[in-house]
Amino acid sequence: MKVLAILYEGGKAAQEEPRLLGTIENKLGLKDWLESRGHEFIVSSSKEGPESDFQKHLVDAEVLITTPFHPGYLTRDLFEKAKNLKICITAGVGSDHIDLNAAVDHRIQVLEVSGSNVVSVAEHVIMSILLLVRNFIPAHEMIERGDWQVSDVARNAFDLEGKVVGTIGAGRIGYRVLQRLVPFDCKELIYYDYAPLPAAAAESVKARRVEDLKDFVSQCDVITINCPLHEGTRGLINTELLKHFKKGAWLVNTARGAICDADAVAAALKTGQLSGYAGDVWNVQPAPKEHVWRTVKNPLGGGNGMVPHYSGTTLDAQARYANGTKSILDNYLNDKPQEVQNVIIGLGKYETRAYGQR
Amino acid sequence: MKVLAILYEGGKAAQEEPRLLGTIENKLGLKDWLESRGHEFIVSSSKEGPESDFQKHLVDAEVLITTPFHPGYLTRDLFEKAKNLKICITAGVGSDHIDLNAAVDHRIQVLEVSGSNVVSVAEHVIMSILLLVRNFIPAHEMIERGDWQVSDVARNAFDLEGKVVGTIGAGRIGYRVLQRLVPFDCKELIYYDYAPLPAAAAESVKARRVEDLKDFVSQCDVITINCPLHEGTRGLINTELLKHFKKGAWLVNTARGAICDADAVAAALKTGQLSGYAGDVWNVQPAPKEHVWRTVKNPLGGGNGMVPHYSGTTLDAQARYANGTKSILDNYLNDKPQEVQNVIIGLGKYETRAYGQR
Repeated sequence: MKVLAILYEGGKAAQEEPRLLGTIENKLGLKDWLESRGHEFIVSSSKEGPESDFQKHLVDAEVLITTPFHPGYLTRDLFEKAKNLKICITAGVGSDHIDLNAAVDHRIQVLEVSGSNVVSVAEHVIMSILLLVRNFIPAHEMIERGDWQVSDVARNAFDLEGKVVGTIGAGRIGYRVLQRLVPFDCKELIYYDYAPLPAAAAESVKARRVEDLKDFVSQCDVITINCPLHEGTRGLINTELLKHFKKGAWLVNTARGAICDADAVAAALKTGQLSGYAGDVWNVQPAPKEHVWRTVKNPLGGGNGMVPHYSGTTLDAQARYANGTKSILDNYLNDKPQEVQNVIIGLGKYETRAYGQR
Repeated sequence: MKVLAILYEGGKAAQEEPRLLGTIENKLGLKDWLESRGHEFIVSSSKEGPESDFQKHLVDAEVLITTPFHPGYLTRDLFEKAKNLKICITAGVGSDHIDLNAAVDHRIQVLEVSGSNVVSVAEHVIMSILLLVRNFIPAHEMIERGDWQVSDVARNAFDLEGKVVGTIGAGRIGYRVLQRLVPFDCKELIYYDYAPLPAAAAESVKARRVEDLKDFVSQCDVITINCPLHEGTRGLINTELLKHFKKGAWLVNTARGAICDADAVAAALKTGQLSGYAGDVWNVQPAPKEHVWRTVKNPLGGGNGMVPHYSGTTLDAQARYANGTKSILDNYLNDKPQEVQNVIIGLGKYETRAYGQR
């Protein structure tokens, strides 16, 4: 059996830090385990174009392992060429880099390690909200360059207490964000989702559902996006919707870059319609050097909290998704049932509502 | 009556943003109110040396208003010269820039606006913990300069979940920090304080008291300092104590800079004994251009989360401490009793245990 894994390059860092499991160097800790069982295990970061290792080895691989951090984009075209492919495993959470409808049509299973980094991402959300609302980055940059002018920072620094915070998506990550917000004494926690939370869950975080998206965004001081990317959420945050945001709202997106229209968000930040934008997801990854989100700022010179896609790949998360990937592989190899929550696409059908079925 | 206020300069920011109340331009919103009552109100940021407005006007001022953000240092020498002084009001929380023992001896009251920014600071602590543990700053800098190398960031990024977090001081700020940490599923929350929390309070945050400081620090992955500066806490975090820290611990100090030995902390960060140091307080404020805390990094080039002293001076906090200062003044002018929790030094005696009485 041939197993192909597309992972990110770790370089010197991966040699020095064996806990960087999600790299081509440390191979999710699967190399010896797979090879001792007689399987071929190809690991590479080369993923773009017909000459890439991804496309070269995809033609006869039975198992494909990818990650959201350095996504191997599995399009319908590539599915046609992947004659041996039986199962795609996302080492992490979020399988939108795979054409899920094509996977259904080709009866190829798609699984992910569903719980592996939901806490990591939820923590990143809380951090991002706080650093935008409290105007951290201009403050830190001021110190680094040797200045001290408290008023220039304080003029755009607020407390999270007393603000209205809303999540688009109240699933595994969004709900954990709400839980972590509870003690901050926000004015209100609200959410927008295709389904209401179970009553007890909603009560425990005191969150109110708002059914209309425009109505929802118009109520929020802070919006955090925690829904999957699918046909229904691509470009959800666009010029039109941004007009309905509260003037000066803060937006955090750790879900998927393409949920936001990149230029629309940049324009809103520049005019001050948004006070800040933060997150770790980009419409293409790695993000091009000149991507507008790298450097765009609000009118006061702050409000950009962007980082590369790493919130779900802390060393703690890597241990979890490496283990989870191994366990999915082990089930597959030994014909054992998969854990239900990990299955995105079963044989010829969606097993989750999260990705918006056809 | 002459009222002297030493505040920070707001410049253009204060002209543009009237909510920047704590500046010399916006004068805590007190100007009209005081002057319409016939009082003289001197406001300046000039505070160092015998030619400063601070020292010039202190000789006949009856009321002195200062802030922790741009502290007018009221030494015993200056108390001798302040012949008319009756009351010192700290617009904010933390009156260590005043020689409290000298205030007792001169029977000069010291009050602060005790609740005004405890939430602001607690939020800053949570933000700082998250951004150190999750290695945010190197990640953001990488994006700004046009790079993308996830492994270089991820190699030193962790989740807060599962870590042991300890606070030195579990008072008004420290306890709010503990409350906000509860949903993060830390391995354990512990605290070090001169007195145990009331049983119900400790139970509600599930925090365990550790009585010996060395024992305490040796158990923590993350340490947050939330105690006042006084004779018993000055230099508390020094070379000797840092040896007892867990290798690679993260330290957040939003209390007072002088609680930490600046060089000892910098040295520990350089060697990796600390993985990170963040906070907004400095042993002298404004911090000199070449202060070691501005740029010192851990061996991987990160771990510095310093900002100027502003966590307690968000616009939300400024509204609260401006109101609180006015209310203390109003009580003083009309011989009404002060709110008990605001009184640090009454007539000739300490009214709080927080500053470690003589």
